[in-house]
Amino acid sequence: MPIKTALTSLLDIEHPILLAPMAGVAGGALASAVTNAGGLGIVGGGYGDKDWLSQQLLGAGNTRVGVGFITWSLRRNPALLDLALAHHPKAMFLSFGDIDEFAAPIKRANIPLIAQIQTLAQARKAVADGADIIVAQGAEAGGHGGGRSTLPLVPAVVDAIGHKVPVVAAGGIADGRGLAAALMLGASGVVCGSLFYASRESLAHPNNKRATFAGSGDDTIRSSAIDVARGIDWPGQWNIRTLKNPAIVQWDRDLDGLKGQVETEKPRYLKAAAEGDTDVAAVIVGEAVDLIKADASAAEIVATMVADAEKRLAAAPQMLG
Amino acid sequence: MPIKTALTSLLDIEHPILLAPMAGVAGGALASAVTNAGGLGIVGGGYGDKDWLSQQLLGAGNTRVGVGFITWSLRRNPALLDLALAHHPKAMFLSFGDIDEFAAPIKRANIPLIAQIQTLAQARKAVADGADIIVAQGAEAGGHGGGRSTLPLVPAVVDAIGHKVPVVAAGGIADGRGLAAALMLGASGVVCGSLFYASRESLAHPNNKRATFAGSGDDTIRSSAIDVARGIDWPGQWNIRTLKNPAIVQWDRDLDGLKGQVETEKPRYLKAAAEGDTDVAAVIVGEAVDLIKADASAAEIVATMVADAEKRLAAAPQMLG
Repeated sequence: MPIKTALTSLLDIEHPILLAPMAGVAGGALASAVTNAGGLGIVGGGYGDKDWLSQQLLGAGNTRVGVGFITWSLRRNPALLDLALAHHPKAMFLSFGDIDEFAAPIKRANIPLIAQIQTLAQARKAVADGADIIVAQGAEAGGHGGGRSTLPLVPAVVDAIGHKVPVVAAGGIADGRGLAAALMLGASGVVCGSLFYASRESLAHPNNKRATFAGSGDDTIRSSAIDVARGIDWPGQWNIRTLKNPAIVQWDRDLDGLKGQVETEKPRYLKAAAEGDTDVAAVIVGEAVDLIKADASAAEIVATMVADAEKRLAAAPQMLG
Repeated sequence: MPIKTALTSLLDIEHPILLAPMAGVAGGALASAVTNAGGLGIVGGGYGDKDWLSQQLLGAGNTRVGVGFITWSLRRNPALLDLALAHHPKAMFLSFGDIDEFAAPIKRANIPLIAQIQTLAQARKAVADGADIIVAQGAEAGGHGGGRSTLPLVPAVVDAIGHKVPVVAAGGIADGRGLAAALMLGASGVVCGSLFYASRESLAHPNNKRATFAGSGDDTIRSSAIDVARGIDWPGQWNIRTLKNPAIVQWDRDLDGLKGQVETEKPRYLKAAAEGDTDVAAVIVGEAVDLIKADASAAEIVATMVADAEKRLAAAPQMLG
């Protein structure tokens, strides 16, 4: 008895679960695994590495996946959108910036446009600009984001624009309880990042996956530290949630000082990331990390989440005594 | 068909809805109204004004209500606990500090001890120290708090200590959707603050209630500004979420500077609070403010929330297609 929502209908998918398009982590293998499990896999377009994106889209094989971009970054290299559209993605996912200039070409290609937002005002603007689906992302999410929390944001977005497009919840959801809760809030589905970050098909370093299984939601931090350290010029309204580690905690105390040391810190950071040195490079997961304990494939993750949510929804009337 | 949970059994209440013990706002009238509506009303003991507390407990009349204290503040004036216990409260609610030294007298009086926490580590400690009920409070809550978000915190706390005591969700919940979602997360009920802040029986200034109806969750801020301005020495791990206003936004930019101006800013703040000048004094509500639109009594609020949650729980199996 699958969960049927406006999202599963619009995207023609079996389960209302979307893979967060995590840069460098959500590649073709993970995205195709999530799609094959009945959700929607979305390749993370990241910061504009055309060759990497091409390779990952080819890696998805005959499985239809979506493509996600960081909107402000895409604006610097809009040709990437043509590359993505040429692969006939199942959906385009844009986050972190106005979708305005990108909506027209995506709609001409007849591809569903998913816009992720962090505030109610952004949700209203994204729908006015042509979004077909709104993802309301809370600040508990791993990776970039910021601002509001999922639990109060989702119903507010549903009230504001839910009569026009489906609303999907992101941030803090990593099991069937979170999926069932999101549906009760009026969402039509969920986006999961951290949960798939640690999956077998994820491109995250094995050390990062082990750190995810061991991590606690008490020990995450939202900071601009690693973006400054690795020299990525993120707009100030968003920062990035990760597990704390010694380097990030130290950097976060003096971001201005860090800016003057990028020449030495950037190679140090990139080397640590490549080697899986989690004392320096970030484990990019959110507050739901407490719920992620087992090494699992994307197919197992989707099946477990759905089965638990279905059980809870089926049993919900029994709470009424 | 009321919602039956471990919380309603333990407290012998009809509905799993607790009033947040908001200092200066949750007085005897509001607390008794929530209890009479089938939830549990809890008077906010605040910062230790004994006469005010006595008056409010008398104001609750023959209706049994709970009493809440700010734990670090109670430690400075522990005699207040005796005052509260002498009124045979239906429960004691402690937040913001270790409950250790207060657990014994509360348990001797055979009063259920509710401990509100903001992290998983605090939840484990509070249960070890004798809490009968754990409230997991997310940072989206209005008023004091901080740290984690409700949606991922609640299931993590349930996994850690839910086999020992009921877990209640606080922060970001202001309608039946939030209550139903909290139950799906494994919580046994909810604590609501903002929703009752704006209720007819609340002691908040009428201007503050109007600002709540008009406010947006996009426009709240977590800051120490008003505590510094009014000279309350809150421990640094907690700060207070309110609607933004010109004074708070300005103070927040320079808290160190504000500390040097308390002599002038404190009387200015207190005068503004007394007069309902919401450009200076804080409207102490959280991110769920979007969901609070109508002037209503506590009885209407409880009835509406419960009816909507019951409807959603009863209909949940229909999502399975």
